[in-house]
Amino acid sequence: MTATPFRLGIAGLGTVGTGIVRLIDAQGDAIAAKAGRPVAVIAVSARSRSRDRGVDIARFAWEDDPVALAARDDLDAVVEVIGGEDGPAKALVERAIATGKHVVTANKALLARHGQALAEAAEAAGVALAGEAAVAGGIPALRGLGEGLAANRITRVFGVLNGTCNFILSEMAARGAAYDTVLDEAQKLGYAEADPTFDVGGMDAAQKLAILAALAFGTRVDVDGVSVEGIERVSAEDIATARDMGLAVRLLGLAQMTEQGLEQRVRPVMVAADSTVGALQGVTNAVVIEGEAIGQVTLMGPGAGEGPTASAILSDIVAAARGAARPLFGRPAAGLISATRLAHGAAHAPYYLRVMLADAPGMLAQVASALGEVGVSIQRMHQYDGRGGAVPVVLITHDTPSAAMEAAIARIDAAGICQASPVAMRLEAV
Amino acid sequence: MTATPFRLGIAGLGTVGTGIVRLIDAQGDAIAAKAGRPVAVIAVSARSRSRDRGVDIARFAWEDDPVALAARDDLDAVVEVIGGEDGPAKALVERAIATGKHVVTANKALLARHGQALAEAAEAAGVALAGEAAVAGGIPALRGLGEGLAANRITRVFGVLNGTCNFILSEMAARGAAYDTVLDEAQKLGYAEADPTFDVGGMDAAQKLAILAALAFGTRVDVDGVSVEGIERVSAEDIATARDMGLAVRLLGLAQMTEQGLEQRVRPVMVAADSTVGALQGVTNAVVIEGEAIGQVTLMGPGAGEGPTASAILSDIVAAARGAARPLFGRPAAGLISATRLAHGAAHAPYYLRVMLADAPGMLAQVASALGEVGVSIQRMHQYDGRGGAVPVVLITHDTPSAAMEAAIARIDAAGICQASPVAMRLEAV
Repeated sequence: MTATPFRLGIAGLGTVGTGIVRLIDAQGDAIAAKAGRPVAVIAVSARSRSRDRGVDIARFAWEDDPVALAARDDLDAVVEVIGGEDGPAKALVERAIATGKHVVTANKALLARHGQALAEAAEAAGVALAGEAAVAGGIPALRGLGEGLAANRITRVFGVLNGTCNFILSEMAARGAAYDTVLDEAQKLGYAEADPTFDVGGMDAAQKLAILAALAFGTRVDVDGVSVEGIERVSAEDIATARDMGLAVRLLGLAQMTEQGLEQRVRPVMVAADSTVGALQGVTNAVVIEGEAIGQVTLMGPGAGEGPTASAILSDIVAAARGAARPLFGRPAAGLISATRLAHGAAHAPYYLRVMLADAPGMLAQVASALGEVGVSIQRMHQYDGRGGAVPVVLITHDTPSAAMEAAIARIDAAGICQASPVAMRLEAV
Repeated sequence: MTATPFRLGIAGLGTVGTGIVRLIDAQGDAIAAKAGRPVAVIAVSARSRSRDRGVDIARFAWEDDPVALAARDDLDAVVEVIGGEDGPAKALVERAIATGKHVVTANKALLARHGQALAEAAEAAGVALAGEAAVAGGIPALRGLGEGLAANRITRVFGVLNGTCNFILSEMAARGAAYDTVLDEAQKLGYAEADPTFDVGGMDAAQKLAILAALAFGTRVDVDGVSVEGIERVSAEDIATARDMGLAVRLLGLAQMTEQGLEQRVRPVMVAADSTVGALQGVTNAVVIEGEAIGQVTLMGPGAGEGPTASAILSDIVAAARGAARPLFGRPAAGLISATRLAHGAAHAPYYLRVMLADAPGMLAQVASALGEVGVSIQRMHQYDGRGGAVPVVLITHDTPSAAMEAAIARIDAAGICQASPVAMRLEAV
C-alpha cells in the first residue's frame, strides 16, 4: 500500500495503550485495508519509559509530557488512554485539537464532564473527537446510536453498563452469597478495584449513561442530572426473594425522554429473570436501544478489558483515518439542546417493597394504611414465615411515583413497626 | 440548514419504500442533523403509480422504469428496494453506479450473488454501495463487522438470521406443536410467505451468512459455498427431547475460518437453551461475532419489517450523505480473497442422534457397532419407553466429523433395525 500512513501518538501505556500497540502489530494489514491507509504509531508518552510492558516501545519517539506529545507536528491523531476527568488527559486533548489533530479517547469521565466543550472545539477545528471505547468497552454502542439508528426517534436507552456490578449481582444470585463476600472475591479476580467505590457506587455507569443519553436524545451531556444509587446495600435476601418471583436484581442505567423531562438514573432494579438484561451473567455489558422505527435493538459484549477497549479505540482510529469520523454525539455539538430534567419524585414504576415487621398483631394493617394514605396501591403481597422475631412481608405495588414511594417508606419507618428500614426497588419492564 | 440537500431516488414503493418516505417525513430534522445536510426524496419508481400507499407520492417525480430513475441527473443516491437477484434491481444498481450515484439497497440476493462485481464497480466509480438493511434488518451488523470491530481477527460469526424460522422453532418448543401447524399460523400472522420455501429452506439465511462471512474474513462472497438445510423436517419430538436435555433447536447460520478452509453452513442445530441464541424467541434475529481482541459481541433485534428495514436504509443514507460510507465489505472489494471451501464432511462437532428402534433384542447393539465401526464414540445415551412398537434411543456423540456421522447413519439405515431414518443434529457451542 502506498497511501500516506495515518500517524498516531499514544498518551498512556497501561494495559489499553500497550493493547493498541499489540493490535496494530498483529493486525496491521487488515487495519490498513479497512482504513484505506497504513496506521502507524509514531510517538508515545507514559509515566515510566523503562517499565517492561511486553511490547517494544523503543521504536517510537518518546515524550515525557503528554501535552508535548499532543503538540508534535508529525502526528495525525492522538489516542488518550491516561484517564481522569481533568489534569493531563484534558490538557492533552485540548492541545491536540488546538493543533489540528484527531483525538480518540477511552475516557468516559472526561467526555461526561467536558464532552460538550471538547466536541465543539473539535468540530470548529475540523478534527474528529471519538470515544467508542468510553462506553461499554468493545460494544459498538455509540456507533449504533449515532449512525446505525440515525433515523430513529429513540424513546429509551438502558443497559447494564458496569461489569463489576453485574459480576457481583449475578454471583450473589448464583450462590446465595452476601455482597461483601462476592466483592472480596471480585477484587481477588481483578474484576473490582481495591477501592471499588466508583464502580459499585454507580458513578462509572452514570458517566456512560450520560454519554448514551446525549446521543440518543440529541441533548447536552448532563452527568449531574443522573440520579445514582449503587449496589452496596443490595442484600442476598432481596436477591433470593426476587428469584422466587422470577425476577433478578441488576444495576440498570436508564435514560428516557418523557413529556415532563429527561429521566436519567442508575440504580439496582428488579427485571424479569428471563429478559436479556436479567439473564446477563458476569462482567458482560448490554446496551438496549428502543426507537420508534426499530423497536428494540440489543448490543451485548465485554464492557472492559485490554482487548475490547483497544478494539474499540482502533475502530475509531480506522474511521478517522478514512476521513469518516462522525461527530462525538452523532450530530454537531452546538446543536445539542439542554434537556429539562425530570423532577425528582416524578419518575414512576411498579415497586418491590420488603418490610421486616415486628411479630405482633396489627402490624400489617399499619403498613397497608401507610401505603394507602399516600396513594400507593398493592398489586400482590406475600408474608413469609417469621425469622429472628421479624416477619418478612414482600409487596409488589401498582405503578407508583417515586415521591409517593419515598413518602410511604418514611411513614412505615416512623410507625416503629419494622425491625429494619423497608427496602424498595423499582420493577423495570425491559 | 443551508447545506445542499442529499437527493434520493427510491426504486420500489412496497412497505419498505414507503417506510423510508415516512421516516424522512417524520424525522427529517434529526436526519439532517446527523447527515450534516437535509435528505430529500426527489423521484420514485414503482409498478403502480396510483395505488394508495398511505403517503403522498405525488410530490415526487415519477419514473415508470426504475433504470431510468437510476439514470436521472438530479439525484445523489438511489435506494433499491425492488428485490430479486437479477432483473430490474441489478440493472438499476448498475446504472446508478455507472452514472455516479451512491446506491443503498436492502437486497440480500443481489449482494450475495453480484456483490463482488457491484462493489468493485462502485469503488471504481467512487460512489457508495451500502447494504446494512440486507442482513438482519435493523441490527447494525455490517456496520459492527466492517468498522466497529475493524481491528479484530474474526474467528467465527454466527446467528439466527431468519425470523420466520425462529418464530416457527420457538413456537413449536413453547407449545409442543408440529411444524405444519405452526407454519400455518405463521402464514396467517404474516410471519411467513404463502410460499415459505425461501425462508424455511434456509436460503434467506444463507445469503445473509455469505455477506457476513465476506465482511468477517475479508473473503469474496461465496453463497454457493454455504451448506444449507432448512427446518422443514424438524419434529416436535426432537424439540421436546432437546428441551429435556437443556437444549433448544435453532436454525443457525455459522461461518468460521479453519485451517482447512472456510466453513459456511445454515442448518438446524441444538444449542444450550439458556444461551443467547437458544433463548431467542419469535422473529428476533441475533448476530454473534467472535474476535481475538473483542471476545464475543452479540447484536440482537428485529430482523425484518418496514420500520427496522427502513431504519437500516436511512443509516446508510446518512453515512453516504456525510461522505462517510465504508466499502460494502469493509475493505476494498478488489482486495478480497477467494477462500478455500472446507471440504464436505470435514466439519466436526458433537452430534445428537435419535433412532427409533424396532422393539426386539439386539437392536441397540447393532446401533452401537454401526457407530463404532465408523469411529463415532458415544458420550451419553438414553433409551425412552417404547411407543407404537418403536423404542426411541437418543445418543449424544463426542466430537465427530460430519462424514463419519453420515456414514454411521447410512449403516444404521441399511441394518433395517429402525422404524424411521435416524435424525442427527449438530450440538453447537454458542
